[in-house]
Amino acid sequence: MKEYLEFAQELAYKAGSIMKEYFYKEKQTEYKSDKTPVTIADKMINDYVIEQVKKKYPTHSVDGEEAKNINNSKYVWVCDPIDGTSMFTRGVPVSVFSLALVYEGVPIVGVVYDPFLNDMYTAIKDSGAYCNDKPIKVSDKEYGELGCSIDYCMWNNAKFDTLEIAKDIRKDVKLCQVGSTAHASMLVAKGTICAEIFPGTSHGHCDMAASKLIVTEAGGKVTDFYGNDQRYDQAINGAILTNNKVHDKLLSKIKKYL
Amino acid sequence: MKEYLEFAQELAYKAGSIMKEYFYKEKQTEYKSDKTPVTIADKMINDYVIEQVKKKYPTHSVDGEEAKNINNSKYVWVCDPIDGTSMFTRGVPVSVFSLALVYEGVPIVGVVYDPFLNDMYTAIKDSGAYCNDKPIKVSDKEYGELGCSIDYCMWNNAKFDTLEIAKDIRKDVKLCQVGSTAHASMLVAKGTICAEIFPGTSHGHCDMAASKLIVTEAGGKVTDFYGNDQRYDQAINGAILTNNKVHDKLLSKIKKYL
Repeated sequence: MKEYLEFAQELAYKAGSIMKEYFYKEKQTEYKSDKTPVTIADKMINDYVIEQVKKKYPTHSVDGEEAKNINNSKYVWVCDPIDGTSMFTRGVPVSVFSLALVYEGVPIVGVVYDPFLNDMYTAIKDSGAYCNDKPIKVSDKEYGELGCSIDYCMWNNAKFDTLEIAKDIRKDVKLCQVGSTAHASMLVAKGTICAEIFPGTSHGHCDMAASKLIVTEAGGKVTDFYGNDQRYDQAINGAILTNNKVHDKLLSKIKKYL
Repeated sequence: MKEYLEFAQELAYKAGSIMKEYFYKEKQTEYKSDKTPVTIADKMINDYVIEQVKKKYPTHSVDGEEAKNINNSKYVWVCDPIDGTSMFTRGVPVSVFSLALVYEGVPIVGVVYDPFLNDMYTAIKDSGAYCNDKPIKVSDKEYGELGCSIDYCMWNNAKFDTLEIAKDIRKDVKLCQVGSTAHASMLVAKGTICAEIFPGTSHGHCDMAASKLIVTEAGGKVTDFYGNDQRYDQAINGAILTNNKVHDKLLSKIKKYL
C-alpha cells in the first residue's frame, strides 16, 4: 500500500508541475460536447498517468476523466487530471489533481494535490488522512451552527439540480463554490467546511474516488444522493461528502430534489 | 496621481504580506452581526491603512470595511482589507486587498492585490488598466457565447437575491463564484470572465471602488443594478461589472428581480 501511495504522490507532483506551467500560459481550451472545457494540460496529465501506470503496474487499469486504459484487472487507477478545469482556464488557483487506486470498486489509496498551495492530501484505507504528512480531521460543527459552510457544485446538464438544493439550505448554512469538487472535499477533510455536494453521475467517480477515501479517513462520511455507499469504478449517483454530523440532515434536504 | 498609486501599491504589498502570514495560521475568526466573518488580519490591515494615510495624507479620509477615519476632505481612501474573508477562513487562496482613492465619489486611483499569485492590478483614471504593469483588457465575448462565464456573489441578508438571477441566467452562461467580488472583477478586467454580479449595498462601495475603476479602464462597464452610475464613497445599489458587451442583456435579466 505504501508503495502505491508513493507512486501516486510522484504522479501528483509531476501533474502539479504541469498544471502550474500551463496556468501561466495560454490555456488552449477546447469545449467538450457537454460544453465543459478541457485544456491541453488536462490531456497531458491524463496521458502521463496512463503511461506511468503502464510502466509500473502493466496489468492495472487507468480510468481517467479525459482518457482510459482498461485492462482485465481488479485494480483501477481512477484519475481526474485537473479537477476544476473551468477555474483553471479563468486563472483562479483552486484546481487540484486527484488520483485513487480502486480495488473492486473501493478506493484503497488516494491523493489529492493542490499545486498552488503545495498541499498534498493522502490516505490509505484504514490508516487515517493526512495533509503534508500531518493528520487531518473533519469539523465537529452541526448543521446550521454558526460557521457551518457547505460547498456545492452545479452545472446545467447535471442530472441533479443542486442549485435548488442550495436555495433550500442557504438559510441554514453558509454556501460556497470553490470551483473544484475535490478541493472542496479536502476542505471537508481538514475541517474548514462541513460538506461538499456534487451532482456528478457519469465520470463522477473520477472526481470523487480519492476524495471519498480521504474524507472517510478524516472521520467524515460519503454516500450518494440516496444515502447509499457506491463503487468508484463506475458511474455514480451524485455524492455528498460530509463531516458526518451534518450528513443525515443534508440527505433529508436533498431527498426532496431527486 | 502616480504618487497616489505608488502609495496604494506599497500598502497593498504590506497588506498582502499580512494576509499570507495569517493564511497559514489559526484564523481567529469572529462573526459580525450579519454573521459574516472578520479575522484579526482584516482588522490589522484596515488599521494599517488608516495609520499610513494619517501619516502621509493627514487631511484625507479612510473608509474601510472594518474601520474608518473620516475627515472633512473630498479625498477618501476606500478600502476592503480582505475581500473574500470567508474563503480566507476556509483556506482557499482567492482573497485580495482592495484600495481606491475616491475624489468626490469618483475613484481616481485603484489597486487590487492578489498576494497568492502576486498579481497587482492597478489603474489611474483615464490611463488604462494594468496587471503587474502589463495592460489588460476585457473579453469581447457576447452574452450566451460559448465560454462566456459570469460570477455572482450571494449572501442571505443581501437586499438583492442574486441566487434567483443566477438561476435565470445559468442556461445562457457558465456561472462561477470565486468567493471574492474584487478578485472576480479582476477576472472581468483581464478578460477571463465576462461579468461580476455583486448584491452589496451598505459597505458595498468598499468592495467595489477599486474594481469599478480598474474594470472601466480595462474597457468594461460598471453600473448599479438599475443601470445607473454610482458614487463610491457611500452605500450603493448592487453592482454589475462587465466587459460592456454583456451589460445591457444582464441588466435586463436583473431588472426582473429588483
